[in-house]
Amino acid sequence: MTKLVEPMVFKRILLTIDADDPEANERALRYAVTQAKEFDAELGICSVLEGSDINIYDSLTPKKLDKKREALNEVINKYVEMAEDFGVKNVTAMTSEGGDIDDEILDTIIPDFNPDLLVCGADKDGEHRFYSISIKLAKKAKISVIVIR
Amino acid sequence: MTKLVEPMVFKRILLTIDADDPEANERALRYAVTQAKEFDAELGICSVLEGSDINIYDSLTPKKLDKKREALNEVINKYVEMAEDFGVKNVTAMTSEGGDIDDEILDTIIPDFNPDLLVCGADKDGEHRFYSISIKLAKKAKISVIVIR
Repeated sequence: MTKLVEPMVFKRILLTIDADDPEANERALRYAVTQAKEFDAELGICSVLEGSDINIYDSLTPKKLDKKREALNEVINKYVEMAEDFGVKNVTAMTSEGGDIDDEILDTIIPDFNPDLLVCGADKDGEHRFYSISIKLAKKAKISVIVIR
Repeated sequence: MTKLVEPMVFKRILLTIDADDPEANERALRYAVTQAKEFDAELGICSVLEGSDINIYDSLTPKKLDKKREALNEVINKYVEMAEDFGVKNVTAMTSEGGDIDDEILDTIIPDFNPDLLVCGADKDGEHRFYSISIKLAKKAKISVIVIR
């Protein structure tokens, strides 16, 4: 007679979006919405305006910075709409700004949304970053993390 | 009008078991069986007899090595039974031996079982290993990987 196993269902799913990687986003979105709909979870969709995307000139020019914020919001809102069209009932958009994307997600967005699962697309190899943000999140987050390929 | 999102469902789920970490195994098992049952996926449950667990003396003593193999099989079979009791229809047990657990999983078990999702418990911090096997798998596998906490 073995011990009875309790099901494990995530109720607050946070999807991270990399505005520069639509293919990875779409795969990660597909997993996140499938889970959220099937298990009736709340879905947060977040992205961070990277420090390195804001140069000194831009940061001194409010209009340029506003344009970048606007572009990021548009990207996020597109994914929110796709999730709602898929049938997810509770979808929240979140954007943030920070020097390091992973720190911003770990220190600001996660405490704010309080997810039990983080869904990340896999960073492409040899991209503009020297390390993979998804892997850093998988390593440092205190919650479960899935890297979608 | 946004693009319609296709659901993403994993059909072959591979759960990795660390014989030394029953708590992490159990959490990972709960996620794996919930997914496998809900989405009617095949479930593989695997573990690797570590090279460092086999000392030279043992490796020259077939009986001692057989005992270690037997103990590992017992652990895996317990999880297989729990998965079947939970209602997962297709469960396969796999054990293997190798110097590095992660390499053995990546190079032998994954090509053999051909999963589309790898489920790992999170390694405890400050354990007997200097690096986290789950994070290495999340980094190096060509398929989606979830680290359960």
